[in-house]
Amino acid sequence: MRFTITHTDTNSLARVGEINTAHGAINTPCFMPVGTQASVKTLTNSLVEEQGAEIILANTYHLYLRPGHNIIAQLGGLHQFMRWQKPILTDSGGFQIYSLASLRKVTPAGVFFQSHIDGSSHLLSPELAIEAQCAFGVDIMMCLDECTPYPATSEQAEQSLTLTAQWAKRCKEAKGENPNALFGIVQGGMYPDLRRKSVASLLEIGFDGYALGGLSVGEPKELMKEMVETAAPMLPADKPRYLMGVGFPADIVHAVGNGIDMFDCVIPTRCARNGLLFTNEGNIAIGSSRYLKDKNPLDNTCDCYTCRNFSRAYLRHLYVSGEITAMVLNTIHNLRFYMRLMEGIRTAIKTGAFAELSNKFTQK
Amino acid sequence: MRFTITHTDTNSLARVGEINTAHGAINTPCFMPVGTQASVKTLTNSLVEEQGAEIILANTYHLYLRPGHNIIAQLGGLHQFMRWQKPILTDSGGFQIYSLASLRKVTPAGVFFQSHIDGSSHLLSPELAIEAQCAFGVDIMMCLDECTPYPATSEQAEQSLTLTAQWAKRCKEAKGENPNALFGIVQGGMYPDLRRKSVASLLEIGFDGYALGGLSVGEPKELMKEMVETAAPMLPADKPRYLMGVGFPADIVHAVGNGIDMFDCVIPTRCARNGLLFTNEGNIAIGSSRYLKDKNPLDNTCDCYTCRNFSRAYLRHLYVSGEITAMVLNTIHNLRFYMRLMEGIRTAIKTGAFAELSNKFTQK
Repeated sequence: MRFTITHTDTNSLARVGEINTAHGAINTPCFMPVGTQASVKTLTNSLVEEQGAEIILANTYHLYLRPGHNIIAQLGGLHQFMRWQKPILTDSGGFQIYSLASLRKVTPAGVFFQSHIDGSSHLLSPELAIEAQCAFGVDIMMCLDECTPYPATSEQAEQSLTLTAQWAKRCKEAKGENPNALFGIVQGGMYPDLRRKSVASLLEIGFDGYALGGLSVGEPKELMKEMVETAAPMLPADKPRYLMGVGFPADIVHAVGNGIDMFDCVIPTRCARNGLLFTNEGNIAIGSSRYLKDKNPLDNTCDCYTCRNFSRAYLRHLYVSGEITAMVLNTIHNLRFYMRLMEGIRTAIKTGAFAELSNKFTQK
Repeated sequence: MRFTITHTDTNSLARVGEINTAHGAINTPCFMPVGTQASVKTLTNSLVEEQGAEIILANTYHLYLRPGHNIIAQLGGLHQFMRWQKPILTDSGGFQIYSLASLRKVTPAGVFFQSHIDGSSHLLSPELAIEAQCAFGVDIMMCLDECTPYPATSEQAEQSLTLTAQWAKRCKEAKGENPNALFGIVQGGMYPDLRRKSVASLLEIGFDGYALGGLSVGEPKELMKEMVETAAPMLPADKPRYLMGVGFPADIVHAVGNGIDMFDCVIPTRCARNGLLFTNEGNIAIGSSRYLKDKNPLDNTCDCYTCRNFSRAYLRHLYVSGEITAMVLNTIHNLRFYMRLMEGIRTAIKTGAFAELSNKFTQK
């Protein structure tokens, strides 16, 4: 993996770059649609690609449990299995254990947990997290981390970042000669000094990129922004910086201004399934009766299949009728909206217009 | 609407033809994917068209209740509303009242029923059924009929066909100068003489096409086939003959051999959502663990997006994981399977190979 920065903003830490992988290039800042179980929910791969996605994220936790990393390896790896030929990043499973699994117990060896599918017991160690991701054959792997909950005392946060650093070291060792990239994850809760400590411990090990973890876990939005402002600039400038699990468009623009290059979030896809659609004129709850006879497209400025073809009235009808096609059409739109957002961000940085774009989002 | 027969089979009543409508041509024998609520479940229109569909069926009952025919008319008619530019046929609503609505009461005036959505009370009269379908602006409308249940005594069946004939007359009158086509529906239960009587009463009124209703309503398969063999040849040869709500591939091949030109059925789409997939080598229950590591496509001979790209192992994974994308990919395949079936039937009739094709299905 190579990372090249091609443009930097003069008024902020925003930058435009390119990550090159064996499966192609990713223009940054980028948004990674979430394909938890090896599919971006409701869409075919063709549709994901059509919206402009250059990389997707899949979840190690889910794919480790089902169908299993060994089976995916036997079937030729994750790219071949799901027939997605562009880059893939997998998280390490840590966050899903934190949010989904029951009876989890964190020990130095790893995380004991029960599957949310069948209740079976598992130990996810740093070594197993890497083994699974190597078996998937993904372009970017993530270290197993312990996601510090919010709120957490500084003692808890420190314990958690220390464990995360130990695991990160073991992940790096477990990776060995595997040519794919491995990113470290910064923890440290909402404590700037602990974030700094976490970064330092990861830098000592050395990774291909660095992610901010443990954000967007229930803290107030202002606190998240504060932590991004504080922690993002601590990450080395010559490596991709990834803000995990974020976020709404305004959060993304804010983080880009603080030097973040990569994002993933279920917001565009999950909101689409629930009838919440993003437009340049604000959000649309498509189930509302106000759209009963609305002949307009969702967003006049959008070039997606949904906006090119269908009225709000039709999309409302499908949504209130519980049609699965509603979820498909809505997901197409929201995903395209996010992809256009990222395209707009990159163009703005290149043309010196990022401050202006950023102000628009701040005002909204 | 014009109907031209271009080929007739020498060994059976099968024929190839073309129905020409204001929205384009339909090659017959044809299969109409069901788009109950103005969308073929799980698919975008592009995907429906890509599978080869030349006409779809929508349900008057559903669209009358939601969003309402007046709203669809205000939005430019059903083609414009759902952005499907090829022909559309709507049923009259009679069958859905029979199968979905509660507290229905059939009177000479029409059918009183309560909506399955909100319990509201409605009277669907022959005039209203036509008013709604005219408002939709569909290419082919169907007369309101009373679907005779199975089993029914000959008295019940006769009563039902008499009412259906009276309603058919009122439908024809209600249509007035509307240029779109109107088909009559033959009832008569499982009684050949009553089927003959029903046909005679419809012929007296005169329609653009004739449908066999009241089949595939719970009767044994052999009885359905017997009734198709008996009743299909009673329908005038120079008009399209439509067997409503049928069926499995073998049922379709059998009915084509008895002179049927048009079919609709939820089987390909519903089975797809439930993981039952059709192939030339037999059906596949994709959830089965036997496909866990199966690298083969569903059907080696199929040219659909799903078969061109994905393994059974991947499709099984998506299905058992409850991914909506599984429903989309499965529906693409099953619909394409049906479209290829119809293409194969038409080619076989044209090339004198229909008897051979028919034998294959009989042996299966």
